[in-house]
Amino acid sequence: MVTIAYLGPPGTYTEAAALAYPDWLPPSARQQVPCLYPYPSIAQSLKAVAGGQVDFAVVPVENLVEGSVTVTLDTLWQLDTLQIRQALILPVSHALISEAKSLDSIQTVYSHPQALGQCQKWLEQFLPLVQLVPTNSTTEALQSLEGDPAIAAIASERAARLYNLPVLVCPIQDYLENCTRFWILSKSASPEATERSPRQNQAVKPALGTYTSLAFSVPANKPGALVQPLQVFAKRQINLSRIESRPSKRSLGDYVFFIDLEVSLADLSLQSALAELGTYTEILKIFGSYTVLENS
Amino acid sequence: MVTIAYLGPPGTYTEAAALAYPDWLPPSARQQVPCLYPYPSIAQSLKAVAGGQVDFAVVPVENLVEGSVTVTLDTLWQLDTLQIRQALILPVSHALISEAKSLDSIQTVYSHPQALGQCQKWLEQFLPLVQLVPTNSTTEALQSLEGDPAIAAIASERAARLYNLPVLVCPIQDYLENCTRFWILSKSASPEATERSPRQNQAVKPALGTYTSLAFSVPANKPGALVQPLQVFAKRQINLSRIESRPSKRSLGDYVFFIDLEVSLADLSLQSALAELGTYTEILKIFGSYTVLENS
Repeated sequence: MVTIAYLGPPGTYTEAAALAYPDWLPPSARQQVPCLYPYPSIAQSLKAVAGGQVDFAVVPVENLVEGSVTVTLDTLWQLDTLQIRQALILPVSHALISEAKSLDSIQTVYSHPQALGQCQKWLEQFLPLVQLVPTNSTTEALQSLEGDPAIAAIASERAARLYNLPVLVCPIQDYLENCTRFWILSKSASPEATERSPRQNQAVKPALGTYTSLAFSVPANKPGALVQPLQVFAKRQINLSRIESRPSKRSLGDYVFFIDLEVSLADLSLQSALAELGTYTEILKIFGSYTVLENS
Repeated sequence: MVTIAYLGPPGTYTEAAALAYPDWLPPSARQQVPCLYPYPSIAQSLKAVAGGQVDFAVVPVENLVEGSVTVTLDTLWQLDTLQIRQALILPVSHALISEAKSLDSIQTVYSHPQALGQCQKWLEQFLPLVQLVPTNSTTEALQSLEGDPAIAAIASERAARLYNLPVLVCPIQDYLENCTRFWILSKSASPEATERSPRQNQAVKPALGTYTSLAFSVPANKPGALVQPLQVFAKRQINLSRIESRPSKRSLGDYVFFIDLEVSLADLSLQSALAELGTYTEILKIFGSYTVLENS
């Protein structure tokens, strides 16, 4: 049986990403029902796949509003290189969940800091005086309700159904187009991953092209140290769709760079770029090529 | 009287940064005792200076372990351009504060997510079974103690003294060299800021040089769109000490880039670089030049 680690408890957006897409699995595994294992943190779900306790981990990478999920990037850099098998962009719609009959009685709102951030303007407009309390996951926020009409939580409508709790207002995120990108990772690369088409599925649009992700550190305090690696790609007309810097944790001002490229590892121009890139970088980790699916 | 906004309540690391350094103030204001105003969020303290309610705001920008304080960058991009008057690097040492006589009785630990993240390995080693509860600030975590030996909070030793609470273990951060960089900002630039030397003070090392910070967006989906702006600086031997990407919140994959340069706006090479930079960027915001002080 195929096993998948995710940030639990059940009801999180990461579980929704893991559940919705049999297309994430390699063709050989699609006939099997995957078994989902909740983990208390993103780092622990990644360590579970690196340590061989599960076959795959599904993790959030980036939200439209809040940006990178830094614990995902930092943990990937620390572990032996995992391979990205697929990316998925999932719409994220937040609901205000409460036993309250109206907004007037609500004094406290619980949710994950990312969800509170994604609903910030709505909260300022409709609940300007409430106390906002961060939790470890949106599902955990639901455990704080306890039937009290002075308390509300922000989570998905799916989570409200799962725990049989009433939705007071939905959607409440500031950007209606709010979405999060997820990766599914395993210990080994999938040779067919960059070639196969996703299975036909009404909920899934055609793949948005093939990407390759990598991360590297550069020698510290060298003028232009970052420009040289970027030129390697620019002069070959390889587009960077994303660059993110994270602290190396060695000294302030020393970074690791994460880059997404709009090209496959099967492409000769990327192979030549990577050969040159190695001469400018200190440590280079290549997380593989994958296609991106988008929920409609 | 000079007024300074900061993330409160009193006892936070941001308040320590605001309190410790009369050198942050322009020379004309150094004889005055500054009046510190706590704000419930970083965004609100920045809006207070943009709206003219206070003269300055002190905000955290970047931590050695946890990286960028994204709300600081996102709010700066949204507001009319504020000017950075000074940067300060402050050591951040965390204490476990509790009425408990030993670690054995502790079941729950409260703190700001950044502080929990900075003590993650220590917590895994010495308190592997406790529940971690995030709060809006380290000072707020102290309000959860209520004399209960089953509860602990992570905050500074200074905060423990301020609220007359016992320190059980200190330091507990994973990296002993842990530090955070802060900016002090105002609506107008300080013409003398880049020239004056910091006042002699045993706690402050000599300034670490002059920096200029800016942010820009580039046209979306254009190969090499980020490389051109970076080449502007590289070909003039201007060193980038930092690059950070943040979502523009328009669509996934559309970013704003924040850059710190090791050069002053008074430098002719930077002036020529900025003139060329404008041809490659969509929106360009220049946050001014400033020196960096480091606490010893």
